Amino acid sequence: MTKPSIPKGTRDFTPLQMARRNYIFDTIKSVFRLYGYQQIETPAMENLSTLMGKYGEEGDKLLFKILNSGDWKQAITPEMLAESTIGQLTSKVSEKGLRYDLTVPFARFVTQYRNDIQFPFKRYQIQPVWRADRPQKGRYREFYQCDVDVVGTDSLLSELELIQIVEEVYRRLGINVCLKLNNRKILSGIAEVIGEADKIVDITVAIDKLDKIGLEKVNEELLEKGLPQEAVDKLQPILALSGTNSEKLQTLREVLASSEVGLKGVEETQTILDYAQAADVQLLIELDLTLARGLNYYTGAIFEVKALDVQMGSITGGGRYDNLTGIFGMPGVSGVGISFGADRIYDVLTELNLYPADVLVGTQLLFATFGQAELNYAVKWAKQLRAEGFSVEVYPEPQKMKKQMTYADQKQIPYVAIVGSDEMAAGKVMLKNMQSGEQQLVSIDALISILR
Amino acid sequence: MTKPSIPKGTRDFTPLQMARRNYIFDTIKSVFRLYGYQQIETPAMENLSTLMGKYGEEGDKLLFKILNSGDWKQAITPEMLAESTIGQLTSKVSEKGLRYDLTVPFARFVTQYRNDIQFPFKRYQIQPVWRADRPQKGRYREFYQCDVDVVGTDSLLSELELIQIVEEVYRRLGINVCLKLNNRKILSGIAEVIGEADKIVDITVAIDKLDKIGLEKVNEELLEKGLPQEAVDKLQPILALSGTNSEKLQTLREVLASSEVGLKGVEETQTILDYAQAADVQLLIELDLTLARGLNYYTGAIFEVKALDVQMGSITGGGRYDNLTGIFGMPGVSGVGISFGADRIYDVLTELNLYPADVLVGTQLLFATFGQAELNYAVKWAKQLRAEGFSVEVYPEPQKMKKQMTYADQKQIPYVAIVGSDEMAAGKVMLKNMQSGEQQLVSIDALISILR
Repeated sequence: MTKPSIPKGTRDFTPLQMARRNYIFDTIKSVFRLYGYQQIETPAMENLSTLMGKYGEEGDKLLFKILNSGDWKQAITPEMLAESTIGQLTSKVSEKGLRYDLTVPFARFVTQYRNDIQFPFKRYQIQPVWRADRPQKGRYREFYQCDVDVVGTDSLLSELELIQIVEEVYRRLGINVCLKLNNRKILSGIAEVIGEADKIVDITVAIDKLDKIGLEKVNEELLEKGLPQEAVDKLQPILALSGTNSEKLQTLREVLASSEVGLKGVEETQTILDYAQAADVQLLIELDLTLARGLNYYTGAIFEVKALDVQMGSITGGGRYDNLTGIFGMPGVSGVGISFGADRIYDVLTELNLYPADVLVGTQLLFATFGQAELNYAVKWAKQLRAEGFSVEVYPEPQKMKKQMTYADQKQIPYVAIVGSDEMAAGKVMLKNMQSGEQQLVSIDALISILR
Repeated sequence: MTKPSIPKGTRDFTPLQMARRNYIFDTIKSVFRLYGYQQIETPAMENLSTLMGKYGEEGDKLLFKILNSGDWKQAITPEMLAESTIGQLTSKVSEKGLRYDLTVPFARFVTQYRNDIQFPFKRYQIQPVWRADRPQKGRYREFYQCDVDVVGTDSLLSELELIQIVEEVYRRLGINVCLKLNNRKILSGIAEVIGEADKIVDITVAIDKLDKIGLEKVNEELLEKGLPQEAVDKLQPILALSGTNSEKLQTLREVLASSEVGLKGVEETQTILDYAQAADVQLLIELDLTLARGLNYYTGAIFEVKALDVQMGSITGGGRYDNLTGIFGMPGVSGVGISFGADRIYDVLTELNLYPADVLVGTQLLFATFGQAELNYAVKWAKQLRAEGFSVEVYPEPQKMKKQMTYADQKQIPYVAIVGSDEMAAGKVMLKNMQSGEQQLVSIDALISILR
């Protein structure tokens, strides 16, 4: 029999990994709740009609599709096998897929329950998603997303709230971060001003290379991409953009003076920064025009969070969208949201060794016994300790002491209460501190105060 | 555009439903942890080689199978389409399936990590499972299982521990329950004594009907099922089994005197009941020979828990198995486990109206404002309150007061802090108790003590 295994790109989580993941999720959830966000869950399977066409052609291919139950082969003929595309054939034998992200199911949820939901609707959702990507280091076919969104308001106070959430989550986790802020409207304004609305992506890519290849080469690249000399000239103040966020915004106001949408983006950004200052946000916020994530999708603020003390991609990101539910026929729902990358946060905490020392400590005390009478004695003590709220185990068999001690060691249990006939006679246990090795004979009351 | 929907047999969970489910899961988890059980998770998708053949022929059909990525049609020819069975064809285009339960993945996990695991291994696992069953009331295609098991010891102390966990979980949830206890070895003993080892199921089914149809009809049915008169005669003391658990066990000792395995079952049951008495277990435990769940699977104790104050099937069940990992080539791993039925517990709590009144209360206070300056003022107060640990929202726009109040009402927020220019001038807020309707002008310190 071959050793059993799991599908590539998927993972098992051991107790230590689960304890660490729960630490991350619990921290994030507790901050979400502090701001009044409520949890929802959606099914792992969605109808393919809900999922297809929402992630581009490539995304459609990356959906895991569920084979229809029953005799699915009835739905295909030899002719179809010969002539149909794989997409056509798939639609005959599969009508459900695994969710690819939490955004489309959320849009579907909001549309479906529009009459029951109280807007602004503040929700969070922490569930796995699945993508038939080629697995590689740090990229999995099953991974958790951790999304928080508020929909049904275009107030920029929501942007502030997400910034405050980012600040508080990473403060609690002990990770130093920088939040990069951009605005889709500023990018649109730039493209408008230089008369090259369709070149936004090329421009942001070029700006992004400034540090590496220098201004001269960036200008060359822009010309190569087909930007006229005049447009490149107009871009110079933006390429040279530097200084504080206020200075950058001032420059942008001048450059974008002729673009209504551009100025709107500048004002939105100003308002968000003003809110952050008024709310005494200590988080490092940096206006960064190279930030161009979700450009087809976001319509206002764009966020990205990077850890400062470790080389790692973005660990949180998001932005404002003006039309979440339009794909499902419900127009005009504006919202803003961010997504915490649990796997990357896990890696950052591991690399920087930032997990609490006791993250796995579940059991506080193990009873180790020498015989059946001692076992009964331990069971009674354990019951009393659990009633006090302590997590306690009784080693289930009176085994060799070494074996019981090894068990406590491996499970990082800080105390072992050894029970032999002498201890029973005295109405006590021999308490061993597993870290110091010290032993002392204690009564149940003494034991309770030590554990407390 | 048609209204979006979800696949039949699946569910969305709204904030209220999630709050109730989290209440159940958190209660169960906190009890598991009190006994030193640790959480694991396994992937939603398992290789079909792991899943197939583990749930019988019917189970194989109920597995949701994932269509292979890429050009799966390459794997089938027109000849195969014409001649292969659906099972053969499926194996060509699918190599992964969604997990059907948590037991087989757990067995796979234990086998795979046997060298890293510290035995006895006490784990719990709370994850969804998927079955392509015909959906009906109370039966879903996606539902959560909530399993707790200890493997690697045959100590009956583990059975006691699970009984204590059942007692504590339902005490905390406020549900009155009865735990029904049986032992596979007693059933084997009965079959052995009457010389009809293959008739166990018929016998338990017949015993189960005693209340409804009476002894005479049960005896008739047993004869019809092919049991010889002599066997039916020998069964009479068992059919008449009544009284306390001790009295039942005493009768069984006499009836099963000639069966080694039967006596072993009686002694195991006696030991478990003795343990429970020594540990002062208050839970109602009833020896019930009709309990025959998982008969192909369990080898020792069998458990089932029923709610006393509501008509509902078993809400928790489990038992001991001697060969969890044998299917994966790792023999001799004994364990015992139970599974809490979250959906049924949800229904019981709903029917008996046993949820805490504040199960959904997340946000404790909403700031409602009349203008931009008030909004800024509210943001500062909110920050201070959150730093004190209170869950606080600021309505993101200075809307009509009625709209803001409706929001608080719908979200069951107990307090609203109204901020107008007078309140700002006084450095206070007008605090409204949403239940009593009372309003009072308060400082931040007063507000903090009221919320606390």
